[in-house]
Amino acid sequence: MKLLYPTSLVLDVDSLKGFAPSLHPYDVKQAIPEDLLDAEILITWTNSADNLKDAAQKMKNLKWIQSLAAGPNDILNAGFDKSIMVTTGSGLHDHTVAEHTLALLLNAARKFYEMRDYQSQGKWPQHLGGPQPDRPKGKFTSLRGANVTIWGFGNIAKTLTPHLQSLGANVRGIARSNGIRNGIEVYGEDKIGELLGKTDALVMILPGSESTKNALNKERLGMLPEHAWVVNVGRGTSVDEEALADALDQGKIGGAALDVFVTEPLPEDSRLWKTPNTIISPHAAGGRPQDSEALIAYNLRRFIAGQELKNVHIKGDASSMEIKSKL
Amino acid sequence: MKLLYPTSLVLDVDSLKGFAPSLHPYDVKQAIPEDLLDAEILITWTNSADNLKDAAQKMKNLKWIQSLAAGPNDILNAGFDKSIMVTTGSGLHDHTVAEHTLALLLNAARKFYEMRDYQSQGKWPQHLGGPQPDRPKGKFTSLRGANVTIWGFGNIAKTLTPHLQSLGANVRGIARSNGIRNGIEVYGEDKIGELLGKTDALVMILPGSESTKNALNKERLGMLPEHAWVVNVGRGTSVDEEALADALDQGKIGGAALDVFVTEPLPEDSRLWKTPNTIISPHAAGGRPQDSEALIAYNLRRFIAGQELKNVHIKGDASSMEIKSKL
Ligand SMILES: NC(=O)c1ccc[n+]([C@@H]2O[C@H](COP(=O)([O-])OP(=O)(O)OC[C@H]3O[C@@H](n4cnc5c(N)ncnc54)[C@H](OP(=O)(O)O)[C@@H]3O)[C@@H](O)[C@H]2O)c1
Ligand SMILES: NC(=O)c1ccc[n+]([C@@H]2O[C@H](COP(=O)([O-])OP(=O)(O)OC[C@H]3O[C@@H](n4cnc5c(N)ncnc54)[C@H](OP(=O)(O)O)[C@@H]3O)[C@@H](O)[C@H]2O)c1
Repeated sequence: MKLLYPTSLVLDVDSLKGFAPSLHPYDVKQAIPEDLLDAEILITWTNSADNLKDAAQKMKNLKWIQSLAAGPNDILNAGFDKSIMVTTGSGLHDHTVAEHTLALLLNAARKFYEMRDYQSQGKWPQHLGGPQPDRPKGKFTSLRGANVTIWGFGNIAKTLTPHLQSLGANVRGIARSNGIRNGIEVYGEDKIGELLGKTDALVMILPGSESTKNALNKERLGMLPEHAWVVNVGRGTSVDEEALADALDQGKIGGAALDVFVTEPLPEDSRLWKTPNTIISPHAAGGRPQDSEALIAYNLRRFIAGQELKNVHIKGDASSMEIKSKL
Repeated sequence: MKLLYPTSLVLDVDSLKGFAPSLHPYDVKQAIPEDLLDAEILITWTNSADNLKDAAQKMKNLKWIQSLAAGPNDILNAGFDKSIMVTTGSGLHDHTVAEHTLALLLNAARKFYEMRDYQSQGKWPQHLGGPQPDRPKGKFTSLRGANVTIWGFGNIAKTLTPHLQSLGANVRGIARSNGIRNGIEVYGEDKIGELLGKTDALVMILPGSESTKNALNKERLGMLPEHAWVVNVGRGTSVDEEALADALDQGKIGGAALDVFVTEPLPEDSRLWKTPNTIISPHAAGGRPQDSEALIAYNLRRFIAGQELKNVHIKGDASSMEIKSKL
């Protein structure tokens, strides 16, 4: 049994030794070499679309793909057989994305983007400094006392929340079901309107899927207060970019801090380059999985034992018995 | 006995009623009116230099000045009699300055200032996003695992520290004496060299005084690693700006995020407008005291009772007995 691991990041491969499968490095930007095409397990990270398409066609023994990305959209688009199990790297990006999201929120509240524009002209933005009213109504100037709504209340949201709370924010979540998670009230989509109306900052951390497409559309943007900021670190497809650009241009929301876009790099002719109060971050929130070895080892152990894996995105066919009998 | 309170911020004056002194509003940008010149207590916030100079000359009964600023440099420069007690607003700015400092650190680590420059040109900064090495040695890219040294370990530092720690930073302090404060190792100035050498981000939160002037000078800047950032939210005078500009120009430090300057607004001909990796924030960290009423009431109670006040900066003459006998 062969396991292929990517050379596109530094992995402590030694820590994975001792399991049944033999471990083989591979280049994620090239076609998989002939002698590795019979592998059962593929770990992926920043693979090229061609590499994945080729693998999908030629790797006939493949049982399980472990992506190190939290959103394995590249795998889903490559045409792999539906019988192959896919697990994601959700959890490996929690700290990095949470930190970046916090940074985007603070950049918005403290208006660093506007300060930078003044600095570029050698001008002191007096209106942004000195004595000022403390958290005036109808403005988003601080996380202290701010209502932050997180849409997509999964692993990243759960890591982000305590930081927001310790800075004084009131955090609520939206997901596919109601309930209290990690002490936070999470609403189903039926209650979105109610929640958006009292939101100072809306943080989108939704995966890219059919069900999340244009989740934040014109109608829902219209439910936000005029001072509310939108932060998106999930997937660009969850926001209707034209409706967002309209809302920004017309001053119907406070601003937008975006790390993800429908098309990346953001096309030259996108309106979002020039809309007011817009912060463009080049998909920089995550991009560096942390503690991947622990997740791989955990799932490898369970795969071999025929137990359920962590972060299953596509269940595939491989029943535990089948896997066990092959070993 | 009269207490004068400023109209330069919204104060809940009702919450101060019931104490012996009568409460009188005054305009901090005008000379104090004749009929209020006999007041014993003066609360100050963003007073003009002329107002303070005038008060220092004419208010012959003044016993106590409660500044709402954390650094009461304006009071110290106005020429008040040394017999007058001065208490500061240290503590009222902890949350606001801590939040801004965290924001500056994240702006530096996540390079939002550079992203903004690309955005202004309608360009996608590919090198700042996408897959990237996780916290490479010799770079400051995240608070996670970063060594953050806080020089001036007082109220603001103590509020900031838990936020940095929960994001994964290792925090150490520098103050006038050694010891453990709030669980943090605080070094005296004799150990500065040792500490600076392993610092990824140096946060200056020193008051403006003779003893802190040019605390961060050429020699000490030279002790920092080449990737280290300097953040200053205390007072501009604690940093030798020419030495800092040299260090930035010569790439001897990673960058500087500055909220305070020797001269504010930063003069047009300052080199710091154009030095690389420099973030200019217009003294925007604090500027909005929070919960001032609680501090005023607390100190007023103790002043009347002849007990020691909170945040005493200048002790003055007024012994408790004297005050009591005047009531
Ligand atoms: N910008 C970056 O660099 C970066 C880095 C890493 C990840 N990401 C993105 O962030 C996404 C989230 O990551 P994660 O690790 O937090 O994922 P996760 O733990 O799987 O959480 C996803 C959350 O989204 C919710 N959700 C999914 N579909 C929904 C729908 N149609 N309506 C409402 N809520 C829905 C889920 O709700 P339930 O809990 O009800 O199932 C869950 O709360 C990833 O999929 C990835 O696209 C971006
Ligand atoms: N940027 C802004 O908008 C803004 C807003 C508010 C305040 N500030 C500035 O921040 C400063 C600090 O505020 P804070 O409330 O934290 O004050 P604080 O509680 O009085 O703390 C000051 C700290 O500085 C240390 N210190 C003083 N002189 C020193 C010296 N010569 N060498 C080494 N350490 C020295 C003190 O050391 P010991 O503990 O050993 O005495 C103390 O730890 C204020 O004075 C003000 O200038 C700026």
